[in-house]
Amino acid sequence: MEVGVNPFPLTFAVHFLGIASIAMVFVWTIHYLGGLAWNSSDKSLLFNVHPVFMQIGLIVIGGEAIISYKSLPLEKEVKKVIHLVLHAIALILGIVGTYAIFLYHDEKDIVNLYSFHSWIGIAAIVLYGVQWIYGFVIFMYPGGDPCLRSVSMPWHIVFGLMVYVMVVAAAVLGYLEKLTFLENKGLAKFGSQAYLVNFTSVVTVLFAVLVVFCAVTSPPAPAYEDYAPI
Amino acid sequence: MEVGVNPFPLTFAVHFLGIASIAMVFVWTIHYLGGLAWNSSDKSLLFNVHPVFMQIGLIVIGGEAIISYKSLPLEKEVKKVIHLVLHAIALILGIVGTYAIFLYHDEKDIVNLYSFHSWIGIAAIVLYGVQWIYGFVIFMYPGGDPCLRSVSMPWHIVFGLMVYVMVVAAAVLGYLEKLTFLENKGLAKFGSQAYLVNFTSVVTVLFAVLVVFCAVTSPPAPAYEDYAPI
Ligand code: HEM
Ligand code: HEM
Repeated sequence: MEVGVNPFPLTFAVHFLGIASIAMVFVWTIHYLGGLAWNSSDKSLLFNVHPVFMQIGLIVIGGEAIISYKSLPLEKEVKKVIHLVLHAIALILGIVGTYAIFLYHDEKDIVNLYSFHSWIGIAAIVLYGVQWIYGFVIFMYPGGDPCLRSVSMPWHIVFGLMVYVMVVAAAVLGYLEKLTFLENKGLAKFGSQAYLVNFTSVVTVLFAVLVVFCAVTSPPAPAYEDYAPI
Repeated sequence: MEVGVNPFPLTFAVHFLGIASIAMVFVWTIHYLGGLAWNSSDKSLLFNVHPVFMQIGLIVIGGEAIISYKSLPLEKEVKKVIHLVLHAIALILGIVGTYAIFLYHDEKDIVNLYSFHSWIGIAAIVLYGVQWIYGFVIFMYPGGDPCLRSVSMPWHIVFGLMVYVMVVAAAVLGYLEKLTFLENKGLAKFGSQAYLVNFTSVVTVLFAVLVVFCAVTSPPAPAYEDYAPI
């Protein structure tokens, strides 16, 4: 089901949308929500660490890791290392960002893991870790035999894209949940902050759609030849 | 990137999860939220029409339409008609369910289209309609020439699965949003209703994951031969 399009030019749009979404989450957390801090008497600044780390880590760096084979004009072996290093960074930032929100809940005496956002979020992080380890062992070190590799590859792609979609779903659920809290406390539904947060979700979804699209494309010439007539 | 698995046995799990999710949304809206009604002085009964129609229509019937090529032991031409008829039913139920929530907002003087849930929801319905029309024109009537069909097929699959994922994202955002409203009004975060709604999202996501998985599988034998060594 690969689509016969050269994904390379599209990857520039991915970089642009990713950077835009990071800028938006910074404007939101710094300008509207008072900034970021790990240790401050104002605990809401600890909350703010959560969306920033999740957006930069699992969403943007994770997305860039997925498209690295399509976006970088480098040798396959080099891209492989970049792919797994970027995913490791994404995962570490994601774990730190998740640790921040658990800490925040503890400090504020809020219960843990009550929402579907948190359930799918935790599940996605665990599966992200499983996928990373399986990929490392089979494709990097010690490495499976060629037959196991070639059988694993479509599973790696399908499972990896599903985990990534779960991460993106967790993020937009998080934006919606936080915005709903704020609106229930009186924030204007059509005010500038509401638009900013909702458009951060829009940009995040467009970013993710392009990431998945780049992942399932292959340059035109060989792809067209592969298509069986219907 | 097709995965070499025979999807047929999996389709039974899809039917089961789909029916379970519909049962759950009925228990929620009837037992906990007072029932369904289009015309009642209790406007919350009109609200309840929205999740029920969306879950049955776009999520479950839409998902069944996607896997119909894999789940039904029938001739290709018959399955094609079933595929497009099920999608048409899904879309119509989706439009009725969306109309219900606009009506509810009007009756209760709530503004329209303020949330990311509603934005991605509307976008998904429009794209669902576009996808249906394009598919009908190219693959059914009048029908494109064989070359256009074969070039269109991977786009139809990729675009269709993306639209379906958007629909599922809209649904879980909707469950989270409504539950957050209720929790802000005092509903217990770990009460039976909260578990029911969150598990409806869990079952919906599992259903959708299996639907997408069935869509990207093909029976083992021919698929393995297709794999290029890495
Ligand atoms: C992208 C991946 C994300 C993951 C994996 C994730 C994961 C989590 C987890 C596991 C919790 C539960 C913490 C606890 O119960 O102590 C949580 C809470 C929360 N997150 Fe996220 N999150 C993500 C992104 C976001 C974003 C972008 C926002 C936007 C503001 C956000 C907003 C929240 C809020 C408001 C809570 C507290 C309420 C609740 O527990 O649902 N999250 N998140
Ligand atoms: C599956 C596809 C779904 C789509 C396409 C969809 C679409 C929409 C749209 C377009 C609106 C805006 C109506 C207006 O502004 O007047 C809306 C509102 C709403 N929907 Fe859904 N919906 C879906 C599923 C659900 C589900 C399963 C629930 C669960 C309860 C739900 C809960 C809500 C709520 C609480 C609102 C009112 C608040 C708001 O506008 O965000 N939706 N939906």
